[in-house]
Formats: sequence, structure tokens, C-alpha cells
Amino acid sequence: MITNDQAHAVIAASEARATQIGVSMNIAVFDTAAQLKAFSRMDGAVLGSIDIAIGKARTAALFGMRTEDIGEFCKPGGTSPSLENSNGGLVVFAGGIPIRNAEGKLIGAVGISGGAVAQDLDVAEAAAAALGN
Amino acid sequence: MITNDQAHAVIAASEARATQIGVSMNIAVFDTAAQLKAFSRMDGAVLGSIDIAIGKARTAALFGMRTEDIGEFCKPGGTSPSLENSNGGLVVFAGGIPIRNAEGKLIGAVGISGGAVAQDLDVAEAAAAALGN
Amino acid sequence: MITNDQAHAVIAASEARATQIGVSMNIAVFDTAAQLKAFSRMDGAVLGSIDIAIGKARTAALFGMRTEDIGEFCKPGGTSPSLENSNGGLVVFAGGIPIRNAEGKLIGAVGISGGAVAQDLDVAEAAAAALGN
Amino acid sequence: MITNDQAHAVIAASEARATQIGVSMNIAVFDTAAQLKAFSRMDGAVLGSIDIAIGKARTAALFGMRTEDIGEFCKPGGTSPSLENSNGGLVVFAGGIPIRNAEGKLIGAVGISGGAVAQDLDVAEAAAAALGN
Repeated sequence: MITNDQAHAVIAASEARATQIGVSMNIAVFDTAAQLKAFSRMDGAVLGSIDIAIGKARTAALFGMRTEDIGEFCKPGGTSPSLENSNGGLVVFAGGIPIRNAEGKLIGAVGISGGAVAQDLDVAEAAAAALGN
Repeated sequence: MITNDQAHAVIAASEARATQIGVSMNIAVFDTAAQLKAFSRMDGAVLGSIDIAIGKARTAALFGMRTEDIGEFCKPGGTSPSLENSNGGLVVFAGGIPIRNAEGKLIGAVGISGGAVAQDLDVAEAAAAALGN
Repeated sequence: MITNDQAHAVIAASEARATQIGVSMNIAVFDTAAQLKAFSRMDGAVLGSIDIAIGKARTAALFGMRTEDIGEFCKPGGTSPSLENSNGGLVVFAGGIPIRNAEGKLIGAVGISGGAVAQDLDVAEAAAAALGN
Repeated sequence: MITNDQAHAVIAASEARATQIGVSMNIAVFDTAAQLKAFSRMDGAVLGSIDIAIGKARTAALFGMRTEDIGEFCKPGGTSPSLENSNGGLVVFAGGIPIRNAEGKLIGAVGISGGAVAQDLDVAEAAAAALGN
């Protein structure tokens, strides 16, 4: 399970990368219990993305998978139509990524929202890499 | 109406088959009143599938039909668009199956979630066959 | 975290005690992630108690405390008025008890509902004692 | 409006004081728009208090008042019975405090939950003092 120190490191890495690409982001961290561990909204980050960042982290934590991979299941022609309506509503586009510790063990998930989806994903990749895996 | 003993038998059959194919499953059993009768989450089963297993069993119990057959009604071009949004949200892909007793009488439904949809369906078939029909 | 085998043992102990005192109960087991692990509704158990059993187990798991002790905080004159309205609604009367394993480690919680509150508590005590602590 | 740097400082001050008194806390920071700005759950903090910390910060931000002062309005005999049920549910006991910057300007609110109410309030006072006012 992700620790407070690890969660702070994930948020710091997210903020550093977001600053580098010039986009203000909302950053959410969940643990493997699918419970909120940490959150940060950078100055100027769009308010509508608070809920999306939290939803991405929660979705990735609930399934132990990237949000865009879950999106594959419920896209037209996918195996699981309307999957996105389960669990009180999932977020099924890129920006939610499971977090593993340095030993490769699943410990939580991060969700990023505030920019274009490609930018969200870019920052989420940096966040997920913060712990060395 | 499914009894407690029958519900336990359905869960035991589900767990046995899930173990056989090597996937940790969430297993829900509803009665013909469309009320929760029993539930079991195997160790390691994905948390996001708790709600889906319950949703599959509930959906199959509400209509007395397999979830994927209900999915036919609301797929693009089907007779009942957005049917999946009725009843507070249905689950309309495979893994929910009505349960009949040894005499063929409808007594409830089972819902399985935790693996690929084909694996969920495989275990649900074993669950529904547990009572001899 | 409570295992599937431990959850089944808790349910079996609950059903045995409930049968002994002649009341049909709803039995819910949560893990320390505050996620549903197992559920059983005995034949004849009142439907309105499904949600209450689940709520008791969830409340005890969320706080690692007995539900009636949480009720002390929000009773008239208590320290935390309206606490029961947090977390989407808590159940704050007796029948939800944390579960410890044989070594005394907190691993989850059980919630019992279906009888008078004193009967619910009686069965919950038997359930919580099932693992030897 | 509270900045990201200020929110991080509030969280750091909360964690420092919580460590000092030996209680793991959930810490939420809202801005004057009554929107979530930052959150941190210390290791071991009780899960049921995530929602309460967020609720305290949100309540204090919505009214620009301490949560226990809002509680005065809705206690038995108060001017505003059931006020706590407005806004989708308020938290009306101590632990939510408005935050002012060094110049005394209202910029947000902090909410602390995880210990006894007196401990929550103690940490919230330290948090609200973090910016020099």
C-alpha cells in the first residue's frame, strides 16, 4: 500500500512535469484499497478536472489497470458495453495509471487531469515513474 | 426462491471453477425478488468487479434473462436503446445467468466478475449448473 | 486483510449462532479496505436488513470501531453531531464489530441485522469471536 | 485564493503537529471558491475520516466560519435546525477552520479528521496558523 511519503513524491513528480510542459494539473493518488491518499490542484488548473483526476485514479486503482485500457472494454464493439457506468461512474480515457514501487509491487494509482488527454497521460507517466518503476 | 443452502452451493461451485481456471472472481447471488442473497469475493479478486458482479446478478434477476441477452436489446440498432440506464443502471454483458432448481423452476440469478468476459461467463455457467439444471 | 476462508468462517459462525437463538439474519463481512468481502442472507431474514447489515460492517470497517461506540459520538450531547450522515450514511447502532485474527491483528469487520438490536449484537459477538480473538 | 505553495505549507504544518501529538490525520484544504485544493492521508489514518476531513474543509469554506460555530446554528434550540442537511450535507463539529494569509485575508479553509474531536481541532489550529495568521 502506498505510503504518505511515496504519495508526496508522486505529486511532486507530477507537478514538476506539468510545470515543464506548461499545463496546470489536478493530481490524485489512490491506494490499492481504492481509497483517496493524496490530492493536489496546481494554481490555475481547471475546476472541472478535479473530479476527473480523482475518477481516473479511482478507476485505475479499482481495476489495477490504465484507464485507457479499461476504455477498450467499453468502446463500441468492445466486450463490456456500459462498463463505464459501473462503480458509480468510471473515467475510461487516458491519465489514470497504476503505481508500482521500486520492487514492482502494485501499491496504488495516480490520476491526472487538466490538459489535453495526451498531456494528462504524459504527466501521469512521469508520476507513475517517480518511484523507480 | 433460492434458499441459503442453494446460494452457498452456487458460491462453492463458482469458487471451484474459478480456481480451476486460475482467476479470482467476485460472485453474487440474487433471488427472484431481485434482492441480494449471497456474495463472495475470492482473495485477489479485483475491487472494481464487486459492483459488476452484483450488477450482473441483479440484472439477470430483474429480467429472468442472461445479461448478454439483455445487452442485445440495447446495442446499436437494438429495440431498446438506453435500456441499460433503467433500474438505476444495468450490467448488459455476459456473466449474469438466471438460476433454476433441479425441477427447472426459476429461483434466482448469479453474477460473476473478475476475469475476461469469457472467463466470467465460463464460471457463471458452472455456477448456474450447480443445482442440477 | 481478511481472507476468503476467514470470511466464510465468520459467516458460518454467524449462521450457527443465529440458528441457535432462532432469528434469521443478514450477515456482511468487509475487509480493512472498507470493501465488501462476503454476504449471506439466511432464509426468512427481513429484506430491509440487507442494507443495514452491509452498513454496519462498512461503518465498523471505516473506523475500526464497534458501531455502537461510533453512535456515542453522534448521540445528543456527543462530540460529533450528524457524524452519521458522513461517508454517504453510517449505521450507528449495535451489530457492527471489527474482526481481529488469532494474533489480534485487525483484518476486517462484520455486520449483523435481522433481529432486535440485542440479538444482532449477540450474533455479531459470535461472528467476531469465530477466528479466536 | 490559496495558492498551491500555501496549501502544501498547510498540509506540512498539519502533518508536523499530528506527528507531534501522535495521531494519524486526514487533511483537506479548500479554496474560497469552496473547491478542493489539496488533500493528504497520513499512514494509518482511519478511512472513515477521509470524507469527514473533506466535509469539514468544505463546510468552513462555504461559510467562511469554523465548523463548530456553524454547529451552534443547528444544535437543539439553535436558529437554523437541519442546516447540516443543506449543501448536500455539512460537517458541523470542530476541525474545520478558515485560513487567512499573512495579511489577514480569507483565502480558504482546512479540515482535519482522524483523532478525537479535540485532537482534530488542535491540528486544525496549527494548520490555520501555518501562514502566519
